Amino acid sequence: MKLVTYRIGENEKVGILTPEGDSLYPMEVFDLNFKTMLELIDNITADQKKMIQEKMSSGILDAIPLRKVKLLAPIPQPRQDLICMGVNYFEHVHEVNEFVDDGNFKNQDPAIYFSKRVNEAVAPGDYIESHSDIVKDLDYEAELAVIIGKKARNVKAKDASDYVFGYTIVNDVSARTIQSKHKQWYFGKSLDGFTPMGPIIVTADEFAFPPKLKLQCKVNGELRQNTTTDRMIHTISEAIEELSQGMTLLPGTIISTGTPSGVGIAHNPPKILKSGDIVECIIEGIGILSNQVK
Amino acid sequence: MKLVTYRIGENEKVGILTPEGDSLYPMEVFDLNFKTMLELIDNITADQKKMIQEKMSSGILDAIPLRKVKLLAPIPQPRQDLICMGVNYFEHVHEVNEFVDDGNFKNQDPAIYFSKRVNEAVAPGDYIESHSDIVKDLDYEAELAVIIGKKARNVKAKDASDYVFGYTIVNDVSARTIQSKHKQWYFGKSLDGFTPMGPIIVTADEFAFPPKLKLQCKVNGELRQNTTTDRMIHTISEAIEELSQGMTLLPGTIISTGTPSGVGIAHNPPKILKSGDIVECIIEGIGILSNQVK
Repeated sequence: MKLVTYRIGENEKVGILTPEGDSLYPMEVFDLNFKTMLELIDNITADQKKMIQEKMSSGILDAIPLRKVKLLAPIPQPRQDLICMGVNYFEHVHEVNEFVDDGNFKNQDPAIYFSKRVNEAVAPGDYIESHSDIVKDLDYEAELAVIIGKKARNVKAKDASDYVFGYTIVNDVSARTIQSKHKQWYFGKSLDGFTPMGPIIVTADEFAFPPKLKLQCKVNGELRQNTTTDRMIHTISEAIEELSQGMTLLPGTIISTGTPSGVGIAHNPPKILKSGDIVECIIEGIGILSNQVK
Repeated sequence: MKLVTYRIGENEKVGILTPEGDSLYPMEVFDLNFKTMLELIDNITADQKKMIQEKMSSGILDAIPLRKVKLLAPIPQPRQDLICMGVNYFEHVHEVNEFVDDGNFKNQDPAIYFSKRVNEAVAPGDYIESHSDIVKDLDYEAELAVIIGKKARNVKAKDASDYVFGYTIVNDVSARTIQSKHKQWYFGKSLDGFTPMGPIIVTADEFAFPPKLKLQCKVNGELRQNTTTDRMIHTISEAIEELSQGMTLLPGTIISTGTPSGVGIAHNPPKILKSGDIVECIIEGIGILSNQVK
């Protein structure tokens, strides 16, 4: 299923995209009658999923054209801070060591987990806040985000896929100087308007596990990041196993799995974002998350 | 006001402690008719506060003895991860440099902010989880926690006190090896049962600002940490100003302001926590947060 959160009139709704439409993603949306995506994740039953899929394939859904609604981030108000993985793509390790003072990251290092506060995730098409009063080096990070579907505690890597509800795209927008000067990355990652998310959640059943998907980031059309999601150092399964050994991962938990090489700060000279720039984070099968810097 | 969250029978309630009682903290509790402490923080009006205080001083509250209820953490399920300040007491800087590899912290460094996921804060008297399968060096950190009372964005330090709802005690339990091996501290701070909180919230009006309070930690009665909260390097006002420049702090946000010297790992040899240990975090005017290691 391809799930969206959207606004129509004054109402926020959760819907499913129907297969009609263009090549990027389908163009009609059907209201699933859940108040929020988190409520859907918590409560949707296997029977409901089956019923929806049957209705979809018989084409009897009373859907409305996507152009009539405003897409929001699929989880506009995450229940908890995002868990983010740092320095988690092979080609990214080298470039991080170049731009981080005393950078000494190695492929075989333990996974790096930090978090990102999100009061309100940025909708597809909405602005990335530039915070130009305090941020001098705004950067992008295209990432595959995993959404946990059921309470996970002491999950083994081989069973991890059972706990994945689906996938979306996150742009882990970063203020580089703030990120490094406070030593812990939290604040430089957590500014208002720093978490574009979407455009859709693709449920886990639609991809092989682990998903091997083309992942790209373009700025004003220029290709900056270009890899596939099998180039992660620590896999989704490893992360779920490691984290859930000590932390219960609640349904709706979002784990953003790290960004590949090609971030702005790693260019020479750095290609930092400026007002007006269009950032497109693209993952095969999920779509394009496009946002302009305010 | 001295506010508590408590359970009586099957019900979770929010109440105020009445001034009767022993020297540690008063012993009767009056139901304030809010569903949760977060709902109270969001909605309590100045008029309601005044009415409660008038009733309190006239002694007409129909309170019940504290021994009849089970105290919970004042905010059992924080709305977002705790924001924690690291290496934020003068005497703690030196000891951290001793036990952290490549430790090079200085008093004049920018503040360190990290976060701590809390699915469920640990109630006063309840167990600290030891996670002995993955944690070899469990440690305590007694901290003054500040609770934000209203939406804070671009707040100046001189106005910061207006945004403080109140104070409580947090024990920022830490798994030292996990904290350091993953570079970012998040995971080693965020295990289940790692956030004892309480016993009460004292509203901001009861202390001078910034509060200068005696802060201690005892393990099995042995004094381990002993300072006053004016020994913080970065003050509460500075933190609210700095964070709110970029991040909107929502009502209910908890900022834990860091721990003084005397943590277990800094002793020679280290005094790490073991099963059965009783950890008491004590802050003058707030009370004793006592928990046993499971």
